[in-house]
Amino acid sequence: MSKTISIGIVGYGNLGRGVEAAIRQNPDMKLEAIFTRRDPGSITSGTPMVSIANIEQYKGKIDVMILCGGSAKDLPEQGPSLSKHFNTVDSFDTHALIPEYFGKVDDAAQSGGHVSVISTGWDPGLFSLNRLLAEAVLPEGKEYTFWGKGVSQGHSDAIRRVSGVKNGIQYTIPREEAVERVRGGSNPELTTREKHLRECFVVLEEGANAEAVASEIKNMPNYFADYETIVHFVSEETLRAEHSSMPHGGNVIRTGKTGLDKENTQLIEFSLKLDSNPEFTASVLVAYARAAYRLAQTGQTGAKTVFDVPYGLLSPKSPEQLRKELL
Amino acid sequence: MSKTISIGIVGYGNLGRGVEAAIRQNPDMKLEAIFTRRDPGSITSGTPMVSIANIEQYKGKIDVMILCGGSAKDLPEQGPSLSKHFNTVDSFDTHALIPEYFGKVDDAAQSGGHVSVISTGWDPGLFSLNRLLAEAVLPEGKEYTFWGKGVSQGHSDAIRRVSGVKNGIQYTIPREEAVERVRGGSNPELTTREKHLRECFVVLEEGANAEAVASEIKNMPNYFADYETIVHFVSEETLRAEHSSMPHGGNVIRTGKTGLDKENTQLIEFSLKLDSNPEFTASVLVAYARAAYRLAQTGQTGAKTVFDVPYGLLSPKSPEQLRKELL
Repeated sequence: MSKTISIGIVGYGNLGRGVEAAIRQNPDMKLEAIFTRRDPGSITSGTPMVSIANIEQYKGKIDVMILCGGSAKDLPEQGPSLSKHFNTVDSFDTHALIPEYFGKVDDAAQSGGHVSVISTGWDPGLFSLNRLLAEAVLPEGKEYTFWGKGVSQGHSDAIRRVSGVKNGIQYTIPREEAVERVRGGSNPELTTREKHLRECFVVLEEGANAEAVASEIKNMPNYFADYETIVHFVSEETLRAEHSSMPHGGNVIRTGKTGLDKENTQLIEFSLKLDSNPEFTASVLVAYARAAYRLAQTGQTGAKTVFDVPYGLLSPKSPEQLRKELL
Repeated sequence: MSKTISIGIVGYGNLGRGVEAAIRQNPDMKLEAIFTRRDPGSITSGTPMVSIANIEQYKGKIDVMILCGGSAKDLPEQGPSLSKHFNTVDSFDTHALIPEYFGKVDDAAQSGGHVSVISTGWDPGLFSLNRLLAEAVLPEGKEYTFWGKGVSQGHSDAIRRVSGVKNGIQYTIPREEAVERVRGGSNPELTTREKHLRECFVVLEEGANAEAVASEIKNMPNYFADYETIVHFVSEETLRAEHSSMPHGGNVIRTGKTGLDKENTQLIEFSLKLDSNPEFTASVLVAYARAAYRLAQTGQTGAKTVFDVPYGLLSPKSPEQLRKELL
């Protein structure tokens, strides 16, 4: 194995902490520093904490920056500005804005001579890879993605904006009967309501009207109106005790037909069952950081997505080892 | 889209026929000719049939040869000899001999300036990719591969060599309780017997002793002795009517721990459920033929495996389309 890959983490929330833990499981990497917008002295960690204002002092000292900020506000600014100076990896996940983001990061990374792998993680990321693979192998077929059971941050935020709600969390849950129909190969047409249901755990403000709150949530357009929505009222203590972990997961399933008379049904399924969504996303980011480093080593530059990165670059093993042990 | 990719098929058994059908589902490809060791005049197909002795006349006319011969005798000879003259894709599946085969094909492909993607299909192939991915993302974990329900050619052949057996077929079947234990995340140690069972459908020669045949099968070392084996006796008609399709499939499952205290369990699973094993393998070969063509277009040469090929090259869509539609 070649030299140790030095890593920087930008942003120290759930995802950043997940990356910090994941790097400990990868002996070919070393965490050099964590960059934060907060006062570095206010955060305790085994790793040097540095103000993000000083990040350019680390040029040449850090092989890959793992960007752990949010897609709404942090990454649209940090992605292009940091890829000018560093190889980067991120989990930008606003699907509709990916082409625009790719363009900006590509320009910056090209100009700086760096590699930036954008939109890794699991969706976008591993799920995207499996959508592509299944479509390429089974062109005459139909693909279904199910998400959950897992917390949706956007829907949880929407609940918390309802008047009378003190706190709340929302789980997206795939309907097992829909998943089974898809696995059966009949390529069913499924409505939004048939694919997922939404389960909410809500803490009421004192004196709030539970019925009115439930009704407002269930009828909220875009977020809940098209779904079967279940609302439970719980105490703040219960919410904290039973609903503060961050599970998630889902399935990408495609069935397609093969044969001269298309008489055979073939099914490809990729699924995840995650106790911790941010820690898993972090683990994917770390594997792609290795790939970014290696791509840069071979002289490549610019923005890349998971579609551009051969799996071999994700593993610390050599090509010879991979062919011998894993093929 | 660029020019149509012209394809040749080498070997016209189940796999070759599967490739012929799969190419019809990929409008960016055209099947130019099928090369056979048999008398080309004796085979009816909508495609020109050509004696394999004349294959070098097609140099420069065929972009990728898809090698559909067997791993025991055909590919060890054809892989190196054809990759001197053509880009090739194959499904060489003798795991232990892959490093040696890779070396020979690499030498030949380098010398001819071609690209040869070896050992595609689903195992080796898609299963290998998922083993690599899951190990890279979850380094502290354990991986399990289950095969089936599907026909094992090797075990069926072994049955047919037993004296008193006229015909027979063997299904490898994963034990659902073992799969569920693995999905549960407990990383169980599973014996061979606990992972799979073997079910045999046997046609006896007239006058053969059923009990002796069953006992000989069940106690056959390497093939059956380590498994729970079920032997059914059926008529030749039943065997033909009920057991001539070629289903297969399986699951690659890895669970791993993440977090500073490794308190979270994460599960990655890839699974296939195939009505026709050869047609699915053929569909994978065709997608990798597209990738081989594109790698060659960019000036690459030599042997490659699925680990070296970015998923983006498998799809007929452009990188821009893929980022917009599938990421």
